Amino acid sequence: MIYTSETIDKTVEMFSSLPTIGKKTAQRLAFFLLKQDEKFVQEFAKCLIDLKKNVKLCSVCFNYTETDPCPICNSPKRDRSIICVVESPNDVFAIEKTNEFFGLYHVLHGTLNPLENISPEDLKIIELIQRLDNGVEEVVLAINPTIEGEVTTQYIVNQIKPLGKKISRIARGIPVGSDLEFSDEATIIKALQGRIAL
Amino acid sequence: MIYTSETIDKTVEMFSSLPTIGKKTAQRLAFFLLKQDEKFVQEFAKCLIDLKKNVKLCSVCFNYTETDPCPICNSPKRDRSIICVVESPNDVFAIEKTNEFFGLYHVLHGTLNPLENISPEDLKIIELIQRLDNGVEEVVLAINPTIEGEVTTQYIVNQIKPLGKKISRIARGIPVGSDLEFSDEATIIKALQGRIAL
Repeated sequence: MIYTSETIDKTVEMFSSLPTIGKKTAQRLAFFLLKQDEKFVQEFAKCLIDLKKNVKLCSVCFNYTETDPCPICNSPKRDRSIICVVESPNDVFAIEKTNEFFGLYHVLHGTLNPLENISPEDLKIIELIQRLDNGVEEVVLAINPTIEGEVTTQYIVNQIKPLGKKISRIARGIPVGSDLEFSDEATIIKALQGRIAL
Repeated sequence: MIYTSETIDKTVEMFSSLPTIGKKTAQRLAFFLLKQDEKFVQEFAKCLIDLKKNVKLCSVCFNYTETDPCPICNSPKRDRSIICVVESPNDVFAIEKTNEFFGLYHVLHGTLNPLENISPEDLKIIELIQRLDNGVEEVVLAINPTIEGEVTTQYIVNQIKPLGKKISRIARGIPVGSDLEFSDEATIIKALQGRIAL
């Protein structure tokens, strides 16, 4: 027992097992919760249980949802001719925040990774191909520009090309507000290659 | 609804209401929990409920505990002649980690603060005075050196002085590994005043 209570020990340990939370923060969170009223803590606990119970994957786009299809796939306002392919549900949220994309999404839930034994059938790639009916005109690949992401992008391009659909990928280049001086060579090369005529 | 599920929205909101956790981290934690198996999340939720249910205040020192008196007050190995007074249970843990203090503790649960209407009866000061029987020889004040902490220290000194007990306070000075150059004036003044003959 590190603290004067086994339950505090266990709470600190559980919080520390979450990403970005170290021992010090975990301790602070446990002591914070001890100071809250019982209602708050019970609501918090219920919220976590509900999270696992209510949230499922959309059977169309595989984003997290409580209804099937998800609110995006179900919305009459979305453009069904364009599908944006992303690695994870967080990416959907990042793009939605821009309020600039009005098509549908497709969440792969990972990238190809031979070292970790992640092959095409572990991702939602077959499901993506099956979605590409006559209504779909363009597939936008918004997979992260990591090595695994690049391999995944190339694999999907090879799969979709024969279907005669338009395929694009989001631009790689210098982030807005950043500085050429502090950009790595690979990014500068991609920015030069992806230059746009003015 | 910000995300594609009300429950994700609520989980992110609940996590953000905890100290040190912003919206981005809250989102990351929610998505992390969604990826864990149900057992882990249920155990986490149970842990939080247990925390509020099992952990009480020790009736002697007012530290958090599951047994009354707490393991420290109950331990035959502790020196009952010396009581260290601290603001909060976190402080007990910070001192225990040093393995250098073998007396008992007394947790005030705050400091005097007229602006926030915290007066002596809101803290465990009367309970401290009542503990000072014949067995107690020294009271060590380890209250944080903030303005409120100083006021609280002075108040307790005034209360205990008439009882004829030895009173001390922990030293204020330059932290180990720190640099005079980067210490503030108030700290340097306290370090000079508290100098020790060699």
